[in-house]
Amino acid sequence: MKAKAMVLEQFNQPLVQREFELSRLPEGALLVKILASGVCGSDLHMAEGEDPRTPLPIILGHEGVGEIVQIDGKKKDLNGEELNSGDWIIWNRGIVCNECFWCKVARQPYLCPNRKTYGINLSCRDYPHLLGAYAEYMVLFKETEILKIPKSIDPANLVLAGCSGATAMHGFDVLSEPLLGKTVVVQGAGPLGVFCVVAAKSLGASTVVMISGTKQRLELAMEAGADMVLNRHESSSEERIAILKTLTHNRGADVVIEASGSSNALIEGFNLLRRGGTYLVTGVAVPQQAIPVDVYKDLVFKNIDLKGIWVSDARHLIQAVELVIRHEKVFEKLVTHRLPLEKANEALRLVEERQALKVVLTCQ
Amino acid sequence: MKAKAMVLEQFNQPLVQREFELSRLPEGALLVKILASGVCGSDLHMAEGEDPRTPLPIILGHEGVGEIVQIDGKKKDLNGEELNSGDWIIWNRGIVCNECFWCKVARQPYLCPNRKTYGINLSCRDYPHLLGAYAEYMVLFKETEILKIPKSIDPANLVLAGCSGATAMHGFDVLSEPLLGKTVVVQGAGPLGVFCVVAAKSLGASTVVMISGTKQRLELAMEAGADMVLNRHESSSEERIAILKTLTHNRGADVVIEASGSSNALIEGFNLLRRGGTYLVTGVAVPQQAIPVDVYKDLVFKNIDLKGIWVSDARHLIQAVELVIRHEKVFEKLVTHRLPLEKANEALRLVEERQALKVVLTCQ
Amino acid sequence: MKAKAMVLEQFNQPLVQREFELSRLPEGALLVKILASGVCGSDLHMAEGEDPRTPLPIILGHEGVGEIVQIDGKKKDLNGEELNSGDWIIWNRGIVCNECFWCKVARQPYLCPNRKTYGINLSCRDYPHLLGAYAEYMVLFKETEILKIPKSIDPANLVLAGCSGATAMHGFDVLSEPLLGKTVVVQGAGPLGVFCVVAAKSLGASTVVMISGTKQRLELAMEAGADMVLNRHESSSEERIAILKTLTHNRGADVVIEASGSSNALIEGFNLLRRGGTYLVTGVAVPQQAIPVDVYKDLVFKNIDLKGIWVSDARHLIQAVELVIRHEKVFEKLVTHRLPLEKANEALRLVEERQALKVVLTCQ
Amino acid sequence: MKAKAMVLEQFNQPLVQREFELSRLPEGALLVKILASGVCGSDLHMAEGEDPRTPLPIILGHEGVGEIVQIDGKKKDLNGEELNSGDWIIWNRGIVCNECFWCKVARQPYLCPNRKTYGINLSCRDYPHLLGAYAEYMVLFKETEILKIPKSIDPANLVLAGCSGATAMHGFDVLSEPLLGKTVVVQGAGPLGVFCVVAAKSLGASTVVMISGTKQRLELAMEAGADMVLNRHESSSEERIAILKTLTHNRGADVVIEASGSSNALIEGFNLLRRGGTYLVTGVAVPQQAIPVDVYKDLVFKNIDLKGIWVSDARHLIQAVELVIRHEKVFEKLVTHRLPLEKANEALRLVEERQALKVVLTCQ
Repeated sequence: MKAKAMVLEQFNQPLVQREFELSRLPEGALLVKILASGVCGSDLHMAEGEDPRTPLPIILGHEGVGEIVQIDGKKKDLNGEELNSGDWIIWNRGIVCNECFWCKVARQPYLCPNRKTYGINLSCRDYPHLLGAYAEYMVLFKETEILKIPKSIDPANLVLAGCSGATAMHGFDVLSEPLLGKTVVVQGAGPLGVFCVVAAKSLGASTVVMISGTKQRLELAMEAGADMVLNRHESSSEERIAILKTLTHNRGADVVIEASGSSNALIEGFNLLRRGGTYLVTGVAVPQQAIPVDVYKDLVFKNIDLKGIWVSDARHLIQAVELVIRHEKVFEKLVTHRLPLEKANEALRLVEERQALKVVLTCQ
Repeated sequence: MKAKAMVLEQFNQPLVQREFELSRLPEGALLVKILASGVCGSDLHMAEGEDPRTPLPIILGHEGVGEIVQIDGKKKDLNGEELNSGDWIIWNRGIVCNECFWCKVARQPYLCPNRKTYGINLSCRDYPHLLGAYAEYMVLFKETEILKIPKSIDPANLVLAGCSGATAMHGFDVLSEPLLGKTVVVQGAGPLGVFCVVAAKSLGASTVVMISGTKQRLELAMEAGADMVLNRHESSSEERIAILKTLTHNRGADVVIEASGSSNALIEGFNLLRRGGTYLVTGVAVPQQAIPVDVYKDLVFKNIDLKGIWVSDARHLIQAVELVIRHEKVFEKLVTHRLPLEKANEALRLVEERQALKVVLTCQ
Repeated sequence: MKAKAMVLEQFNQPLVQREFELSRLPEGALLVKILASGVCGSDLHMAEGEDPRTPLPIILGHEGVGEIVQIDGKKKDLNGEELNSGDWIIWNRGIVCNECFWCKVARQPYLCPNRKTYGINLSCRDYPHLLGAYAEYMVLFKETEILKIPKSIDPANLVLAGCSGATAMHGFDVLSEPLLGKTVVVQGAGPLGVFCVVAAKSLGASTVVMISGTKQRLELAMEAGADMVLNRHESSSEERIAILKTLTHNRGADVVIEASGSSNALIEGFNLLRRGGTYLVTGVAVPQQAIPVDVYKDLVFKNIDLKGIWVSDARHLIQAVELVIRHEKVFEKLVTHRLPLEKANEALRLVEERQALKVVLTCQ
Repeated sequence: MKAKAMVLEQFNQPLVQREFELSRLPEGALLVKILASGVCGSDLHMAEGEDPRTPLPIILGHEGVGEIVQIDGKKKDLNGEELNSGDWIIWNRGIVCNECFWCKVARQPYLCPNRKTYGINLSCRDYPHLLGAYAEYMVLFKETEILKIPKSIDPANLVLAGCSGATAMHGFDVLSEPLLGKTVVVQGAGPLGVFCVVAAKSLGASTVVMISGTKQRLELAMEAGADMVLNRHESSSEERIAILKTLTHNRGADVVIEASGSSNALIEGFNLLRRGGTYLVTGVAVPQQAIPVDVYKDLVFKNIDLKGIWVSDARHLIQAVELVIRHEKVFEKLVTHRLPLEKANEALRLVEERQALKVVLTCQ
């Protein structure tokens, strides 16, 4: 039995279709047939060699949903439910060591220095090879955190729960007060930002304002529950700041969430926040140029709490999956393109050209 | 009965000694004989017209300790203890409105937009005039938060509890985990920084490292309990970062506290922090040039929680007073100069020329 | 100008209708025409002399919604909006001192020992007399925390926000994690319990289970968003515990909220909670017999966090009002009886005989 | 090579000395020579068959400090330090699964239902047999959380860090505010209570009051840093409540810690707490009779937060070890008896007859 996969063999070259032999599973591992595999913006960065940790060759794809084909031994999911062949599952893209200071003492396992991530830093050169989701089949090591999902959901709609959805929930997890009564600004209407809109409203936020530069995305943000959308190309930063003041009894937003992927968003974001507000920076996932920060005005005088949010853990995956299931219709609209696995290169191009909101690869 | 005071009448001009008539107290107010009045670095900024909110003329001085001379009616302190003539007291330099969103809803009264601060934004032009601590007597409005202090303490040693001490405690108040087992770096060995050393050790920190550029101050930091001091002029930033790694099983500091007053400190500070660490920015109290921040590397990838800390409230004053009383010997050493009220201009000069650590004005 | 009011002159005797002269307002106070006044279960306890703090004579009524008729001076609401004659408002039933340890240091103003509560411990013997909401007009002291409300809402639907709604929000405020993904049990389907259902769902709870003994109330809980209702008379405690286990991968509820007013509810509640769960006790508002607690089994072995919740503050009022406005249709159904002020005695009887869910007094 | 161990073969019968063959280590395991093994009060309960989970036969002892003799493969400690033969170590007595809801989602690994505890629920019938610390040697499975300790400490002084010390730190970990300025009452002056005194003072508590019935233990509590000790046999409960009021401006204690092991302590404890205070219940580790709780008066009216504290995790072990090292002189005095391993039965008797504060078994 063989499995096709799309492999990054050289940076800045198209992925190449390869076949891998399905050999014996590692101890305690699972073999999963990929039902849907999300194309994440960071896949593009990796293909272009911008992430120094990318090993070559590699099967990209860290947002997968699959069906269990085989299990070596017994395995339970995060809810203690026994896993069986035929079950549909999603998994935490990162595997942590469960031994280090971050895993055991700081209780921030997402910062584990031994974290391995499928499709990101595990090469297909090494056994068991199938360690990315741009493939027909994938091998999940014993330590993988797995969650069973209902078969009533369209797997393509769920892929973002594994990456941007879970990261968003990590952000909401560190807020120390309920959002009820609060105004939340989300910067950026990509999958991460739209997810943040859904999450903020689901957790009780009174007013959610989306700021983005793309009309269709703003419309989707409205459908996702945003109370107001502001087009960056149709208003000035000063106007947006003024609008936020008007919405908030002249105070500014209680929470701003950077979900645009651009550090520059912070420059406006600081001015949107009220004194005493919280800034969640969730989208800046690749190195960028430094931005100027006025420590006195932006941070101290306003008593701002700014939280950098890096990836996610098991808790956040569970929460993200639940939100997608509750609001599947919204997330269905996020998926603007579905392509067969073989067209992964076209998928990357669609993301690069910003023609797509979310592209999902599927195996028929 | 008259009271002498040192008045800022024009920016960049020496304070002028004036006399004020002690008239009838406002309803519920107290008249206090000033026992000691701290000269804060921000007094210098105000005298130089760098703080746009400074009204003229003004009696400077927001760090006072005094003896009650007269009370209009009855008044209790923050512990519910009745106040009487002859009691020694300290007070919250800021008065808040107890009505606004920040006072009542956000529970961040230190951000009250109606906050009035003795010696900072209350002019002596208006009745009851004596609203700064560079004076023989001072009037405290009914709303002032007051704390009775024991007469066993030297008032000069306590003045910093009212400003930098309370601000430091505000910083520690927002840490969500005990410091036991943690490594804390304090940047800057002025009164704020030395107070932070005492506080960090008192709250259980395992290792406190002070970074400063002044040898005598570093020595005082050691006496205050620092486990290690690093002289900025005798080591490079890279060396200090390496030292912190060595101290922390190669992780970096759990908490960094900016207490230097300089935004630039953050550039090194980000590199001293471990992944998942917390940055308390407490010292940047006047407008400064922006600094470059690498959002990805400094904040997101390291999952940093950066908290701007603005002034303080009643809770922090109580905590600061208690720490000073517990460790009076340390704080006594902080007070390098004691001058009579009339020498306030010389006091400001000492602070400006950085010859003093803490200067206190006293009325014999 | 005169105002009618229903006065409790003697315990266990009907309220008596009296007229009060509208005299000059106290400094900074408001005169409010009562639009709707809720009849709370605790009014009954007071009328029966079960609350030792009840002064006689007293105008009962601590859940009021009104229209401003007159203001002495200027006054803003909690959002900083200026208040004017004709505005509709709701207010915090308790007035705190803004001076004591709880108000200023502990930041638990709801525990202020100087707290005065309209309709509960302010007698109508003393000027300005009109200090309860069972009246045509009411005087609100300067210190009262006020919130402007939109005129689009039916005031009768909003009254519970001022008492049980705000208390419920106090409970949710102390939860330290988002409810998303969690199972919440609410014990008791009175106004407090139904409000808790709405709040839990609005804050993201995945599964909310209501337990009550009254069929109609359970139906309303379903309309309020409960995912499951369990009738105490149609299932045993063991069965309910088993059902909760089934719903939660055999763990038990993450959060149980006692909203029944009965201490005995805790005996079952402990068994409904998962290990590591949180118990919010919000409904037990009058002295009752002690219950047996197995400290080892119920609290320590399960590592339970049990939080007693006493009344509420400004933040909770704002949150409760917002939830009622968002879900007015649900709360409209809670109001089973509307009676004119004069029929206050009948209103109390309806509550006593448990024929009503929520009774509201209105002045035509 | 053989190892002696003291084995519980039948309940209520003396432990029997047996020898076990040292066979091949399980994968990734360590062999440890026991340097000191604490006799915990719960060992007595187990020997008497009061804990239904005790398997027979079993080597008791869950508080061990040892020297590494052999490692299968490589292993790091919680700080990422490589472990080698000859290192001195302490370990978390419980091993968790790192897979379940509590380990991965709730982040409460101490509640893991698959938790195995050395000396408590691991029988010596099964390979590798040496799974309790009443032995010359002990086998630590790969999953064991290990901490390297300095050889400058006397191992006997450290044993309590592994059980009561870590449990105490779990309690302090869930307090959400610094203890500075607060009054803490500790009920019970056994090893757990004395540890709580040290911890409370180390974390900044202003006033720590110990209540106990044994004069020598109260003296030790004073040496451990208690500001006041109250002998239960020399004062009435009413007197103690009055004393606490006097100490706290008539408020009551901010935090009460039950460390006596007796549920009945809560009855007094509720009355020692201030309104809004926190109750940590850490000592009730075996089933006991229920106590009456007045839900209204004890919990709701006072807005109490009561936290049951069950065992501990890696973080708490690290903190406890650090406190013992800092304050070794205090903990040295706790160790009233040192006996050779062979005298384990006498050690249990000393604990049972309450002649000892802490008994430690050592292998010379």
